[in-house]
Amino acid sequence: MAIDSKTNGHSNGAPKAPAELDASKLVISLAKELKPLPTPEELVFGETKTDHMLIVNYDPVNGWGTPEIKPYGPLSLDPMSSCFHYCPNVFEGMKAYVGPDGEARLFRPEENMKRLARSADRVALPPFDTKAVLELLKRFIEVEQRWIPTQPGYSLYIRPTIIGTRSALGVHASDSACLYAIVTPAGPYFRGDAKGISLLAVGESVRAWPGGTGGHKLGLNYAPGFLPQRLASKQGYDQILWLFGEDERLTEVGAMNVFVVAKREDGDIDLITPHLDGTILPGITRASTLQLAQAHTAGKIILPGVPANTKIHTHERVVTMSEVLRLADDQRILECFGVGTAVLVAPVGRIGWRGKDINLPVHKGGLGPIGNGLRTAILEIQTGVRQFEDWSVPVVSVDL
Amino acid sequence: MAIDSKTNGHSNGAPKAPAELDASKLVISLAKELKPLPTPEELVFGETKTDHMLIVNYDPVNGWGTPEIKPYGPLSLDPMSSCFHYCPNVFEGMKAYVGPDGEARLFRPEENMKRLARSADRVALPPFDTKAVLELLKRFIEVEQRWIPTQPGYSLYIRPTIIGTRSALGVHASDSACLYAIVTPAGPYFRGDAKGISLLAVGESVRAWPGGTGGHKLGLNYAPGFLPQRLASKQGYDQILWLFGEDERLTEVGAMNVFVVAKREDGDIDLITPHLDGTILPGITRASTLQLAQAHTAGKIILPGVPANTKIHTHERVVTMSEVLRLADDQRILECFGVGTAVLVAPVGRIGWRGKDINLPVHKGGLGPIGNGLRTAILEIQTGVRQFEDWSVPVVSVDL
Repeated sequence: MAIDSKTNGHSNGAPKAPAELDASKLVISLAKELKPLPTPEELVFGETKTDHMLIVNYDPVNGWGTPEIKPYGPLSLDPMSSCFHYCPNVFEGMKAYVGPDGEARLFRPEENMKRLARSADRVALPPFDTKAVLELLKRFIEVEQRWIPTQPGYSLYIRPTIIGTRSALGVHASDSACLYAIVTPAGPYFRGDAKGISLLAVGESVRAWPGGTGGHKLGLNYAPGFLPQRLASKQGYDQILWLFGEDERLTEVGAMNVFVVAKREDGDIDLITPHLDGTILPGITRASTLQLAQAHTAGKIILPGVPANTKIHTHERVVTMSEVLRLADDQRILECFGVGTAVLVAPVGRIGWRGKDINLPVHKGGLGPIGNGLRTAILEIQTGVRQFEDWSVPVVSVDL
Repeated sequence: MAIDSKTNGHSNGAPKAPAELDASKLVISLAKELKPLPTPEELVFGETKTDHMLIVNYDPVNGWGTPEIKPYGPLSLDPMSSCFHYCPNVFEGMKAYVGPDGEARLFRPEENMKRLARSADRVALPPFDTKAVLELLKRFIEVEQRWIPTQPGYSLYIRPTIIGTRSALGVHASDSACLYAIVTPAGPYFRGDAKGISLLAVGESVRAWPGGTGGHKLGLNYAPGFLPQRLASKQGYDQILWLFGEDERLTEVGAMNVFVVAKREDGDIDLITPHLDGTILPGITRASTLQLAQAHTAGKIILPGVPANTKIHTHERVVTMSEVLRLADDQRILECFGVGTAVLVAPVGRIGWRGKDINLPVHKGGLGPIGNGLRTAILEIQTGVRQFEDWSVPVVSVDL
């Protein structure tokens, strides 16, 4: 092979390595006309489409291509694309907030980036530089900043997504991919239900299994829940409480992590959530909930409305329905809630199990004292009102 | 509300029911230029794109729209579409064959349609008339008939697909869908490997579980296998033998059902395959394999190359790796093979388990006598050379 010093510096004839994802290559094409902003009242979660989207493609020869922020519009994909047939599709849920100081912030975004990379690896999608993705997301949020609602409890939901785009029907890992992100303004996920959500505990349908993918944020974890969810709705329940195993242990609630708050005889509080055994999504709100409770007990912060001397003991372990029933019968449950990026903290009002309802304590406004303290603290951190660790990250304008 | 007799016959003001799928509405737009046909030698499974595709959309207001056969081209989908985020995506694998009489045939297509309907229901996609889909597929195959290879062992692979197209990020069943079909000419799936494929038995990753979706043909069952498959390939194995449970029972092989053929002391043959417990795909080739073996034993047909007086006893039950090892050690395994629409019948040469290989008998040409007899009989039925029940269905030209 002739040596050609002009071939991109690869004069030894070795194949060029696929390009890394490079945020500095970003090209921005702004929409000619901007859409009218919706009023807060008319917002339905995940339905509003903004003006722009972020997109970058990967192919096995060239690697990551040119990232683009461009007008929001449809994806054009070969009907053989792997995403339709074999579902190597992963996503993240994040939020941008504007606080009283008018600055846009992200909440622990590096954690989402790490999980996105783990998810992509789990379904054999191409690897990428997580710092580059985060940089691109920040630039994207800057472009869409007018879409971040400023009302308390409102935010801009961010959905980074990677789909497999190999366009062939052989059952193989997708060697091509499309990474894109869209944003949508979001109000409170559950509105004004002071009674809390109702859960149907389900063990016949199983969300995840050891050796499966329940511990990763894969699109394919969700569709199997649609039919059970429809059946639960018909019985009058809002969401499913996914049980697992012969001991009927709690795993997740709908698409949230679940917490039980119990009063102890010594006056302290137990904050209990299922441990991460590979079947449960390692939620970032879940981790934050545990860390804030521990920080309160250690005196590093005070959760709003929670007495400073209240000790909250966190437990990541098996929680069975029998234990929940026993705690409820003993009047020891203070509250029960689900947590997640979209919902933040959602109170649980009752749990249907074996044909009967376990009714949980009713609190004014829905959440009990611990759930409310946690929710308020997280919101304060998210909006920059309160500093905690390095959790709140400004969407700094970096000139690339 | 005013009564208006012109409102589509709904004079009582009741909402119009969404339209059923109606094959008679089919609109055909032919490609202006046709692509050159590939030579049989250059065919790689699932990579060749033909001239046309079949497509019809469903939305919750209008129901099923106008089915179209149109030039092959990309799908245009909103980036919020459910198929990318939550994966309510289902498909089928079918084949069209041209036999020595020049007629195009399908193999047990009603079985595929029934399974497609069950799959769609499992992920809460809209229901459809299976007869209408089959009629549309037949018309589509007529249009693409020149793409059906005529060489023995070759066929036109058909991929009916339904994807969820609800364009909103809330985690809900998709109330919109796109049903489409593409075809691709196919040669033998595994070429000229007389040694048979090698399997790595894997129990740490699980393909499916009780209460999950392994018994349905959902796209989401496949991506979780990509990474384990990549690891198996690195260890020199062609496919994964998916085990399940503490007894390490066999479930599926790659994307095939698995059979073990064992010699009995009385000279008869045992044909053993895992039973359908909800974790295993109810394969149509699997069902056909069992039925043909039973028909041979009952004297209703004679499998080519298998003595008429050979009794084949079929067993659908738990098969553990320990049993396979014991049968192999006792020299009782005659052969082992995987079956599926794409592959038909594929011989297994060795199984890696607990760090050692179980070597299976080598047969000239790859398949042993039973596998070869079954494969030949199925091919003969598929191509119209042999009649059996109503399994082979001509792609009759029906004027709609």
